[in-house]
Amino acid sequence: MSESLPGGFFRTDLPMNDGRTIRYYDRSDISRNAKDQRPPESPAGIGELRLDPLVNEWIAVASHRQHRTYLPPKELCPICPTSGDLLTEIPDSNFSVVVFDNKNPSLNSAPAGWELPEVNGPYTATPAGVGKAEVIVFTPKHDSSLRELSEEQIALVVSAWRDRTKEISQIPHIVQVFPFENRGVEVGVTIPHPHGQIYAYSYLTPRTERMLAVAQEYFSKTGKVLMDEILAREINDKVRIVAENEHWVAYVPFASRYPYEIHVAPRKRVPDFAELSDLQANAFPSIAKEVLSRLDGVYGVAMPYMASWHQAPVKIGRDLLGLHWQITSVRRTPDKLKYLAGSESGMGAFVMDMAPEQSAEQLKAVRL
Amino acid sequence: MSESLPGGFFRTDLPMNDGRTIRYYDRSDISRNAKDQRPPESPAGIGELRLDPLVNEWIAVASHRQHRTYLPPKELCPICPTSGDLLTEIPDSNFSVVVFDNKNPSLNSAPAGWELPEVNGPYTATPAGVGKAEVIVFTPKHDSSLRELSEEQIALVVSAWRDRTKEISQIPHIVQVFPFENRGVEVGVTIPHPHGQIYAYSYLTPRTERMLAVAQEYFSKTGKVLMDEILAREINDKVRIVAENEHWVAYVPFASRYPYEIHVAPRKRVPDFAELSDLQANAFPSIAKEVLSRLDGVYGVAMPYMASWHQAPVKIGRDLLGLHWQITSVRRTPDKLKYLAGSESGMGAFVMDMAPEQSAEQLKAVRL
Repeated sequence: MSESLPGGFFRTDLPMNDGRTIRYYDRSDISRNAKDQRPPESPAGIGELRLDPLVNEWIAVASHRQHRTYLPPKELCPICPTSGDLLTEIPDSNFSVVVFDNKNPSLNSAPAGWELPEVNGPYTATPAGVGKAEVIVFTPKHDSSLRELSEEQIALVVSAWRDRTKEISQIPHIVQVFPFENRGVEVGVTIPHPHGQIYAYSYLTPRTERMLAVAQEYFSKTGKVLMDEILAREINDKVRIVAENEHWVAYVPFASRYPYEIHVAPRKRVPDFAELSDLQANAFPSIAKEVLSRLDGVYGVAMPYMASWHQAPVKIGRDLLGLHWQITSVRRTPDKLKYLAGSESGMGAFVMDMAPEQSAEQLKAVRL
Repeated sequence: MSESLPGGFFRTDLPMNDGRTIRYYDRSDISRNAKDQRPPESPAGIGELRLDPLVNEWIAVASHRQHRTYLPPKELCPICPTSGDLLTEIPDSNFSVVVFDNKNPSLNSAPAGWELPEVNGPYTATPAGVGKAEVIVFTPKHDSSLRELSEEQIALVVSAWRDRTKEISQIPHIVQVFPFENRGVEVGVTIPHPHGQIYAYSYLTPRTERMLAVAQEYFSKTGKVLMDEILAREINDKVRIVAENEHWVAYVPFASRYPYEIHVAPRKRVPDFAELSDLQANAFPSIAKEVLSRLDGVYGVAMPYMASWHQAPVKIGRDLLGLHWQITSVRRTPDKLKYLAGSESGMGAFVMDMAPEQSAEQLKAVRL
């Protein structure tokens, strides 16, 4: 029943009540067969993609999501293990790491014959928000966080990110896979149980499109790969580096946009999780724990953050873009947040209230 | 002493304690000479611009701003009229509308000989955050809002926007002028007294650069101006229009990004406030009041919003881009906010939880 994964991990797939799939990731070959005992449900709507004509960017319209779960009390957490009468999204009463299809996805599988429309006049749209949205639960423990997990547990999370990226990349129409985590009510997190999400898009996202265009331009001007140049420069400048090990480097970028922003990149560039080596994967948990501990240590409080895994698109730009983990926090002092206000929201023009070197200094000074 | 402005308005400039300028806008030719009685202060630091090498976008680093005024109690409001011992930013004890240079500007005047650096390798920077940042106070009344002002008062605000755009556009190095307003603690507003800001940039902002590129591409393909096509289509579709008059149309855009997003555009395109006609200016206050009243009426609460005035750059794209007012609200239900989480922040890929037509319907249904 289970499938064997690189690094000695195992995966077991089981069906959910409404046709979705849940995938259990384990460190040993456990036999799993817990049934989803909830009554069958009909799947959610499939949404829509609309082109924003002013900037030629796709917007996913998912009006069926308005009533999703919002800050449930702890005893009703939908991603704790199923226990007694509490039938959660995870039918088994014990698990390590699971990934399941999002119950209220903003992106969905493609109807037969679907193609992303060519941009053709300002009012281009397609009546299906094609893509994929999954939830990854990092631990069965409700009161925890990625930082507090054991290195072994984080290794299992990494194994799931690798597996999901590989598998989702094979789905027709998917052009980009994006694992991420939001933490903290300050950034809108509705379920505190440690978890992340994986979005896969049927279109190139604005950020990735822009990064690719800039990397292509840089390569054609200089013959060099921009991301390698950036990492080499950060290593050389040294002042913004906050953690490093044999395979990874963590730094506050030269032109960071948030009071606390950290990029964590492998020393040897790989396009995405699918091409991450076992050695690189094994070296990640320790630096992840260090970086997140430094972040929480600055003010001695759990920092709200968004952690984004940038990956090269599935089929293009794989020699130019590289996997890296971008952590941004909107907390700028113990009692103040940075808001994306007029300049950032209206114009996309960021104003940073702290020098990146100052922020790096604070992160480095945290005693672990 | 005062200067006469189009539309029959008047402006009087006076110096502030640290060399900044305050400009009083009036409906009649009042003699003003209130002195700033506060002790002289040294001006704030000048900041820095750094290029984000991954996307070739300028970031303004303004680390001198970290300690700016934060939610002062009402009796210490820094933008109420000066009264007795309370010496505010506005030395006069009465005013209608004022615009003064921001005390903690994120953008500043250019040192002699300054030029925006060519993008030259990943680590481009310049040790001066060149631009301009001004504060516009909409009314002397602390407890009010743009919506609640009289049409006459809003006309005076418009007159100030026109005047500032014209004047700031003449400053060397300024390529773009951006008047905006943030309202609500939910979007980080630190001073509740009704006011807006004006940022002027020495670089093209990412949003405007993108809008211009798309408009240029559309024009070269079709010979048509994209913004005219969009407005014609909105007028034709009708379902998303929420207010209109002889000179202005307000609509929820076809691919809006926020639960409540409204664009207000003049029927006859003009590049910016500098070229707005008196007739257009005079017709704005009534539609502004209607639009903001509809917005506050949806849930019967003062909605947090960001209101951005998009304008064509000072010297380029003036035949392709047009002035319009974009209002976005992060409130999605009476007790829930939309957060820009993983997909929006990490990838720039927006997910909208409500159909734009649904949002327009709600705004139209508000009884005024």
